[in-house]
Amino acid sequence: MKDKTGMYLAAADIGATHVRSGVFTGNTGGEYGDDVDEIQCVVLRKEALCRDGPDGRAVTEQVVRMIQTVCDEAGCQPDAVGISTAGPLSVGKESIRMSPNMPYPEIPLKGPLEATFPCPVSILNDASAGAYYECHRGEGQGCNNLVYLTISTGIGCGVISGGHLVEGANGNAGEAGHFCVDTIYNLPCGCGGRGHWEAYASGSGMPQFFRAWCGRYGHGISVGEVGTAETLCAAARAGDPNLTAFFRELAVINGRGLSTVIAAYAPEKIIVGGPVATENPELILAQAREYADAYLPTPDIVLSAADGMAPLIGAAVFAGESVENSVGSPSV
Amino acid sequence: MKDKTGMYLAAADIGATHVRSGVFTGNTGGEYGDDVDEIQCVVLRKEALCRDGPDGRAVTEQVVRMIQTVCDEAGCQPDAVGISTAGPLSVGKESIRMSPNMPYPEIPLKGPLEATFPCPVSILNDASAGAYYECHRGEGQGCNNLVYLTISTGIGCGVISGGHLVEGANGNAGEAGHFCVDTIYNLPCGCGGRGHWEAYASGSGMPQFFRAWCGRYGHGISVGEVGTAETLCAAARAGDPNLTAFFRELAVINGRGLSTVIAAYAPEKIIVGGPVATENPELILAQAREYADAYLPTPDIVLSAADGMAPLIGAAVFAGESVENSVGSPSV
Amino acid sequence: MKDKTGMYLAAADIGATHVRSGVFTGNTGGEYGDDVDEIQCVVLRKEALCRDGPDGRAVTEQVVRMIQTVCDEAGCQPDAVGISTAGPLSVGKESIRMSPNMPYPEIPLKGPLEATFPCPVSILNDASAGAYYECHRGEGQGCNNLVYLTISTGIGCGVISGGHLVEGANGNAGEAGHFCVDTIYNLPCGCGGRGHWEAYASGSGMPQFFRAWCGRYGHGISVGEVGTAETLCAAARAGDPNLTAFFRELAVINGRGLSTVIAAYAPEKIIVGGPVATENPELILAQAREYADAYLPTPDIVLSAADGMAPLIGAAVFAGESVENSVGSPSV
Amino acid sequence: MKDKTGMYLAAADIGATHVRSGVFTGNTGGEYGDDVDEIQCVVLRKEALCRDGPDGRAVTEQVVRMIQTVCDEAGCQPDAVGISTAGPLSVGKESIRMSPNMPYPEIPLKGPLEATFPCPVSILNDASAGAYYECHRGEGQGCNNLVYLTISTGIGCGVISGGHLVEGANGNAGEAGHFCVDTIYNLPCGCGGRGHWEAYASGSGMPQFFRAWCGRYGHGISVGEVGTAETLCAAARAGDPNLTAFFRELAVINGRGLSTVIAAYAPEKIIVGGPVATENPELILAQAREYADAYLPTPDIVLSAADGMAPLIGAAVFAGESVENSVGSPSV
Repeated sequence: MKDKTGMYLAAADIGATHVRSGVFTGNTGGEYGDDVDEIQCVVLRKEALCRDGPDGRAVTEQVVRMIQTVCDEAGCQPDAVGISTAGPLSVGKESIRMSPNMPYPEIPLKGPLEATFPCPVSILNDASAGAYYECHRGEGQGCNNLVYLTISTGIGCGVISGGHLVEGANGNAGEAGHFCVDTIYNLPCGCGGRGHWEAYASGSGMPQFFRAWCGRYGHGISVGEVGTAETLCAAARAGDPNLTAFFRELAVINGRGLSTVIAAYAPEKIIVGGPVATENPELILAQAREYADAYLPTPDIVLSAADGMAPLIGAAVFAGESVENSVGSPSV
Repeated sequence: MKDKTGMYLAAADIGATHVRSGVFTGNTGGEYGDDVDEIQCVVLRKEALCRDGPDGRAVTEQVVRMIQTVCDEAGCQPDAVGISTAGPLSVGKESIRMSPNMPYPEIPLKGPLEATFPCPVSILNDASAGAYYECHRGEGQGCNNLVYLTISTGIGCGVISGGHLVEGANGNAGEAGHFCVDTIYNLPCGCGGRGHWEAYASGSGMPQFFRAWCGRYGHGISVGEVGTAETLCAAARAGDPNLTAFFRELAVINGRGLSTVIAAYAPEKIIVGGPVATENPELILAQAREYADAYLPTPDIVLSAADGMAPLIGAAVFAGESVENSVGSPSV
Repeated sequence: MKDKTGMYLAAADIGATHVRSGVFTGNTGGEYGDDVDEIQCVVLRKEALCRDGPDGRAVTEQVVRMIQTVCDEAGCQPDAVGISTAGPLSVGKESIRMSPNMPYPEIPLKGPLEATFPCPVSILNDASAGAYYECHRGEGQGCNNLVYLTISTGIGCGVISGGHLVEGANGNAGEAGHFCVDTIYNLPCGCGGRGHWEAYASGSGMPQFFRAWCGRYGHGISVGEVGTAETLCAAARAGDPNLTAFFRELAVINGRGLSTVIAAYAPEKIIVGGPVATENPELILAQAREYADAYLPTPDIVLSAADGMAPLIGAAVFAGESVENSVGSPSV
Repeated sequence: MKDKTGMYLAAADIGATHVRSGVFTGNTGGEYGDDVDEIQCVVLRKEALCRDGPDGRAVTEQVVRMIQTVCDEAGCQPDAVGISTAGPLSVGKESIRMSPNMPYPEIPLKGPLEATFPCPVSILNDASAGAYYECHRGEGQGCNNLVYLTISTGIGCGVISGGHLVEGANGNAGEAGHFCVDTIYNLPCGCGGRGHWEAYASGSGMPQFFRAWCGRYGHGISVGEVGTAETLCAAARAGDPNLTAFFRELAVINGRGLSTVIAAYAPEKIIVGGPVATENPELILAQAREYADAYLPTPDIVLSAADGMAPLIGAAVFAGESVENSVGSPSV
C-alpha cells in the first residue's frame, strides 16, 4: 500500500465557462475529519473553456494539456487523476454528452485520459465533486446528509446521503437545474425542457427570465438593456425598484427549487456555491430561504467557503480515495 | 451468527388508509439475487387505519397489536421487526410527525415497539421499503440505481443509488409528493405548501385538481358530482370527453413529476406502485410517460408486480438484513 | 312645455352598501354647457342598504320611502324621478336582477315607482348615470367620447360615444367589472365567472385577491389578518413592503382593465369615481396608468370631482332631460 | 334633395390581406327595414393588398384606383364614397395609423379620397361598417343593440347600441382583438401588448398560439409543421386528437373574448363574420359559446350570411345615409 502522505493528486474541473486544473498533495486517507488540513495545493491553472474547436475533442485536448502542464510545473507524476465536470455524463461516464451549457454535443474524457495518464482516473459530476469536498474538507464535515448546490452558469447539486455520494446512473443524479419550478412563464431550458430552475435562476437563465418578467410587469423598462446576470444583480443591489421587484419573484422561484431539493434528499445541510449565489448572498440566498417550504425540518443553508474550488479539490480528494480503496477497504 | 434460513421476520406497513402486518420466513441473506424465491409469507393481516383515537398512540397500539397477532398466528417469536410507514419521520425515526395524510400530529413508533419486541426494530419510510423490496426481490433485481414510486393516497418515492438506499436525514428523502409540478393552479397541499405533485395526482389530491380544472375548462360539468379518484378514473375509462381532457392535463402534471424524479436520482428504472397507478395503467402511466423530459436517458418505467405488498415485504427483508449486518459485514 | 327653471327632480342612487336620495332643482335644459351651474341640490339623504328584508321588495320600499322623504322635506311634488342603480337590470329595466353585490335575487323598481309617483320615472345603470353627469355637468363637459369608471364595492363603467349614452340591451352595457383581467389566479367572481376585474380590484374583491396573492408571494404574512380593502390600502400607504409588492401586482390587473376599457370604447377621457379609486389616487390610478396598453391613443384619466354624487345627480339630470324630451326634440 | 332611388354609391373595404371595391345603387333611404332588398350591387372588384410599396400611399393609390375602376365599369359618377377599413384610425379619421396587421405605419385616406372624388367621403372602421350592414340590411334587422364580430386576419367588432353606431374617438371603439383573454401564455400581440384575443384566435395569431400550446401540451408534435390557421382547422376537422385538444383550449379563449364583448356592450345579438369563424362554425363558434359567461342574458350568436361583404356594403349604405343626412334629418 502506497504511502498516502506523499501522494500527488492531479485534478481538472470542467465548467461551462472555465477549466481549472491543479496538483494537490498530502495525506488524504485515514478517517475523515482527522486530517483535514493536510491536503495542500501545489499548483493551479485556470483557462477559458475552448469554445471554437471543430468538435468536443478540442476540450478533451485542453483538459489533458492543462493537467500535464500543472504536473510539469509541480515536477510530479500523478498518482491519481480526478475529473470534475458539468454534466450530463454518458453511459459509463465515458464523456460529457449533450450538456445544455457546452458548445459541443460530446466531449470524450475517460478513454483519452486513461490513455495519457498511467494511473487511476476518476470522473465525477462537478456538483458531486463539490459535495464530496464539502463533506470531507469543507463546510459539511461531520454531516452525513448534505447537498452541495451550485448556482453558476447552470444549476446542479451533489448529494451525500448516509455518508455516501448519491450518483445515480452514470453519475447524473442531482440535476437540480432541471427541476420544475414554474409553469406560468414556462421558460425554455437549454436541455429542451421548460420551466426548469436553471432557465430562471442561473447565470445563463437569469437574463431570459428578466426579459419574460418585463413582458408581464416591467412596462417602463427598456428590455434592450437587459445585459447579464451580473448587471441585473448590480442594479438590484443599487436599489432599482424594478429590479427589487424582479428579485422578489426570483426568490419565489429559488424557494421552489430549494424546497424540491429538500423534499428529494432530506439534507441536514445545504452548502451553496457558484458565483451567482456567493457574490450576491442577500439578493439570492437570504431571500430564497424565506420562500422555502417548511414541510420537512429546514436544513442549515450556508455559503461554501471554498471560493469556487470545491469541485476541483473534491475531485482530487475523491481520486485519492479511489487509489486507497483499490488497495484497502471501501469508505464511500 | 444466526441460521438465517429459519429466521422469522415480522413487519407492519402503516399507510394513510390501511395498516398491514405479516410474518415472513426464509433465507434472506447471501448475495442479493441468489435467493429471491426463498422469502415466504407465513401470515398476513390488513385493517383500516384507526382514525378515531384520542391521539396518535391509538395507531401505535394498533400496530403493536397487529404484529403480535400475526406472530401469535404464526406461532413464532420474531427475530426482527421491520416497519414501513408513510412519512415524514421525526429526528431519529422515533415517530411519524405531521404527516399530511394522517389524522394525528405525532404517532410514536420506535420506543413502544422496542419496549414490546425483544429483537431489533428497523423503521423505513414506506417508499424506501418498497424500493428495497423491488431492488432485492422485485422488478428491480440486478439494478443498482432505481426508484420505487408510489401513487396512492399520497405520493412518495424510495431511491436506490449505487446499490445503497438513499434515506437522507431521518429517512425522509424521496418526498416526491412534495415536488413542485405546477404554479398555475397552485393547489394547496396537505403539508401547507402549494403546487405539489401529491395535491394533483394522488388519490387524495385528484378530486381537488379536478374541481380546479373544471373552474377553468369544465363549464358544463356539475362540480357537485366530483366524487373520488376512483370514480374519476372510471369515468375516463368509460370515454367521457371531459374526463379524457382532464386526464390529458393530469398526464402533463405527472410528466413533470416523473421528470423531476429522473433529474433528482438518475435511475435506470422506475417501478411504480400504489393503486392509483397500478389500477389505471393506461390512464396514468402510459400517458405520463409521453410528457416526461428527454434530458437524461429515459429510464424503464414499469409497474410493480407486488400487488401493494412491496413496502411490507421490503420492511421485512430490510429487518432481516439488519440482523445479519449487526453480526456480519455491511451490505447496504 | 313646462317651465324648466322651476322643475323639481327627485333621484335615488342604489348601491351595494348605501342608498342615497335627493331633490334637485334648476334649469336643466338648453344646450349642454350653457347652464351648468344651475342644477342645485335642495335636500339629500343617505342610508345603509336594507340587507335583512325578506326579499328584494324591502329595498324597493326603502327607495320609495327615501324619495318621498326628501320630497316632503323639500316641500315639492317631483316633476320627474330618476333612478341610478347597481346592475344588472332585467329586460325592460323593470328590476335589478341577480346582482353579484346585492343580497336579493330581484329588486323590483319600475312598477312600484311608477305606481307611487305620478310623473315620468327613468332608470339608469349607476355607471351610466355617472357618465351622464360627468358629460353634462362634471369633468367631461365638452367631451363626446368618455367613460365614467367606478371602483367601489363593484366595478362598472358608463359610456358616452358620439355624445350618446351607450346603454346596450336593458341598460346593461359597461359591465367592466366582468372583463377578463387574469387567468392565473382565476379568482371566482360574485357573478359566477372567473378572472373578472371586480374579483380582484373592487372593494369586495381586493381582500380575496390579497389572500390568493399571499398564497404565491407572501410566505411571511398571516392571512388571518387580511381585513378589508381599506386596511390593505392603509398598510400600503404606510409603506409595508409586502403591501407595496401586492399593489404593484394590482396595478398590472388594473392596467389590463383600463386597457380593455380603452379598446372597447376608445374614449377621449376616463373619469374615475368610487371610493377605492378616489381615496387612494397614488396607490390605484397612478400605478394602473403605467400598465395600460399604448395601442390606441391613451385618453386622459382623471378622478371624478363629484365626491360620490355623480350617479345621483346624473340620474336627476337624465330624468329632467326625459321630461323635456317627452315634449321636445331628442338629444340623447 | 337628390332622388335617392338612382343614387350611385361607391365603396372600398381595406383589409389586412385584400382590398375590395364596388358600386351599389338603389333606394337606401326611408325607414330602415322598409327597403332592404333595394340596394343592388352593380360591379365588384377584389385585389390583394399592395404590400410592397415604398410607403402607405401605395395602398392609398390602390384604393383610389380600385374605386375609379369600378365606377368606370359601372359607367357612373359616385354620389358618395364609403370606406371600410381595418383600424386603428388617426385623429379625424384621416388615415390608418399603426395598424398591427398592415405593412405600413400610416396609410392616408381622407385627404386623397376627397381630392379625387367630388362627393361626400365617409370612413368607418371595418367592423363598424359590418355592424351597420347587419343592423340595416343583414342578420340584425330590427335589433337595436347588436355587435358584429369579425374573426379574420385580426379580430374586431362593430357595435350598435340603441340603434346608434358606437364609434368612440376617431371611430376606434370595438377593438375587441385587443381585449385581454389570457395571462398564462401571455402571447405578444402585433400591437405591442400581450394576452390579447387577436394574438390567439385570429388567422394571424392562431399559429403562434398553437406553437405556445405545444410548448405546454404537445410533446409529440413537431412544431416545425405548424402551418397556418387553415391547416390547423383542417387537421382538427379531420379528427387529430392533439388538434382536438388544442381547439378545446382555443374555445376557452374565445369564450373569454365573447364574455367581455357581452359585458362591454350588452348586445341582444352577436353576428359573427370573418373566414376563421364562418368556414369552421363547429370548431370555433359552437365550442366558444359553451365557454361564454352566463352573467348577462346570453345573446343570440349567429354567423353573418353576407359572405364577407358586410363591411363593403355597410360602408356603401352608410355613405348613402350620410348624403341624405347632409340634406335631411339625422338618423344615426
